[in-house]
Formats: sequence, C-alpha cells, structure tokens
Amino acid sequence: MSRVTADISISLDGFVAGPNPTLDEPLGEGGERLHDWALATKPWRESHGLSGGETGIDAEVMAEAIGKVGATVMGRRMFSGGTGPWAEDPNADGWWGDDPPFHHPVFVLTHHERDPVAKQGGTTFTFVTAGIEAALERATASAGDRNVAVAGGANAIQQYLNAGLIDELQIHVAPVLLGGGVRLFDDVQKAPFGFEYTRVIESPSAAHLRLRVRK
Amino acid sequence: MSRVTADISISLDGFVAGPNPTLDEPLGEGGERLHDWALATKPWRESHGLSGGETGIDAEVMAEAIGKVGATVMGRRMFSGGTGPWAEDPNADGWWGDDPPFHHPVFVLTHHERDPVAKQGGTTFTFVTAGIEAALERATASAGDRNVAVAGGANAIQQYLNAGLIDELQIHVAPVLLGGGVRLFDDVQKAPFGFEYTRVIESPSAAHLRLRVRK
Repeated sequence: MSRVTADISISLDGFVAGPNPTLDEPLGEGGERLHDWALATKPWRESHGLSGGETGIDAEVMAEAIGKVGATVMGRRMFSGGTGPWAEDPNADGWWGDDPPFHHPVFVLTHHERDPVAKQGGTTFTFVTAGIEAALERATASAGDRNVAVAGGANAIQQYLNAGLIDELQIHVAPVLLGGGVRLFDDVQKAPFGFEYTRVIESPSAAHLRLRVRK
Repeated sequence: MSRVTADISISLDGFVAGPNPTLDEPLGEGGERLHDWALATKPWRESHGLSGGETGIDAEVMAEAIGKVGATVMGRRMFSGGTGPWAEDPNADGWWGDDPPFHHPVFVLTHHERDPVAKQGGTTFTFVTAGIEAALERATASAGDRNVAVAGGANAIQQYLNAGLIDELQIHVAPVLLGGGVRLFDDVQKAPFGFEYTRVIESPSAAHLRLRVRK
C-alpha cells in the first residue's frame, strides 16, 4: 500500500541545515556534512547520473529510500535552492538542473501559480497553490502503489507531521554538531501523534532511525 | 583504562528535560517519558533497591552503563532535584533519599562549600567548589580503573564536552517530542571536537547511540 514517508538528514543537535546559508553553502555552515553518508553511495550517485560510489549499509538505506518512492512533495524553498535571497524569486528555474535526481513527479508547495516544468529523466515539477493536502492528493494519485516522499524542507515536513499526514519518518542522524540553523522539530506540536521505532541501523557515518507515526 | 563517559536520555527534538518543571514533575512536562526505557529494567530497579524488572536489550544497556562506573560527577541542580525554586537552597539534603542508586563516590559541582554527606549503600556526596577539572580529578582518583560518569544535568555535560574532557557520550533517544525544556547541546561549541559512532542499539523504547569524542 502506498505510504507517506519523510527521510531527512539531521545533526546530533537537531538541525537539518546549518547557520548562515549562502549561494555557495545553501545548506548553511557545515550543513553539507549532514549528507556525507549519502553522497558517497552508489545509489545516490546513480540517481544523479554519476557512476561509481560506495556499496554497504548506507547504500542499502539510500537505495531503499529511493526505490520505494513514486512521487515527491517539497516546499518551494527546497525547489529553488535554500533559504537565502537567491531563492526568493518564485519564478526561478530551481536548483535541480536539467536532469534532476527524482525521476518521477514532484509537487512543489507554493503560493505562486506557475506552469509545470518537465525535465529530463522523468522528473516533472508541478506547482500546487491549494495547500498541503491538495499537493499530497495529487502526489498520491501519481505514485500509484509506491510511496509519496515529503522531501523537505523542515517546514514542509513539520506541516505534514502536524496535519497527521506522515506515516513514517526516517531521520539519518549524522555525528556532527551544527550549533545553529534550521531545526527539524521546531514547530511540531506534541499532542496529535507519537512515534514508535520500527528500525534502527548503524553505520559509521550515520544512525538511521526509522519511526512509525502513531496517529 | 578509566574513561570519562556521559549517558543521558534525550527526546527526538533534543531535550533532556521538558518545559515547566515542578516539584511533582521535576523533569518538566513529559520529561519522565525520556526514562521509560530505563525505569522498567531490572538493573535500574536493583540499583534503586527494588526487585523485579525487565531483562532484554534495554536492561543490558543499563547494566553496562551502571557496571563500568566507579565514580560520578554531577551538577548541583541534579543533586538537589531539578531547576525549580525548591532546588535552589544550596544546603538542601538533595533529591536522592537515604540509599541513593549510585553506590560509589559522587562529586557535586557547586559554588557553595559544604561538608561531604555519606549515605547508605556506599554513596557519598562530596561538594567541589574548585571547578570541573578539580571535580574530575577527584572522581578519577576515586574510580580507580573504572569509568567516571558525568551524570548531568545538561549544563554539566556541556561544560565537560566543551573542555574536551569527555571520552564517550551515549545518548538514549526516546521516541517522543517534548516541544520545549532543556536542550542537551545548546551551549556546546562546535570547534574543539567531533564525534564518531561506536555503537548503535535499537530497542522499541529507545535508540541507544554511543559516540566516541574525537579531540
């Protein structure tokens, strides 16, 4: 059955992006280090059109995360490349190049109407102004029996968590401290849901904690 | 060889105590839930003079954490029972009753000179006003070839981390959100150290992440 998942890398101190993002460091100071575990893997490299890469635990976690997803939802800033001023133009072409790594339909949460953009490799960006539930409905219809991934940023994941719409959250805890930036759980309410561990995997470069959301 | 360790339970959103502590809820709203994984275990109950309790993964983690420790360092608020006004009297007898669960020497960081207190079961509380390094030296001398545990609170752990004096940190991540309270890593600087996972253990009630501190 199709489920709604969110997979995100996070620091020990709870940040999904570091402080002071710039065009050169859109994930903020040190933010790239959150993704070290992923970027070296063969499945990540393949999805980005690159050859080579590591196999092993992290690669398996990454392959699984990629393989089950039939459609993605993301916030507008994730589409346009971060939280800095360079990302504020609602008509910007986005951050993801001509051959984005998704290879399936992507639905972008925005307040700005805009025509869909079709890219190479099967990725389409569709802009949804009718809210998070409407975006999820469209993604679910596109995904068929595959999962819908809420890719980020933190704000989009928070909105979907708070609305009780995420079934499974996987946080990839990198063994680093960022000391500032964007916190994953900052605006998440406590009341409407709880969590249960369904799997914990160790690798040298991340602890992969998968949680079922109890509604 | 004797090492300096810190073991602490933490929420998914990074808190080691919840908001609004009271005398009835010294760990703040929801804070007790961080310790659910531990309180049910046989080793925890034994150390508190109670019979029964669960065996299994959490019990093994707890037994290991207790078994290696020959001396403990803690902040004064942890000694006197929390962050509320009831804990502010520097002469208060403390929170730990007549037969505290440590059963070894405990060194309390304080600015207030005070005579040592000997309790039943081998626990002594010694008050150290000469700073964190002096307290650690005394604890290390007492511990022999066993470990010294920096028990908490968050502030004491932060001070020892920032001074580069902790060898191993184990965080027990409970699958709960507290939404406020005391953050473990709030005042930890990024620069002087990094972390490496040395072990990750899954249980239904906590993910036990053990990290070596690279200095």
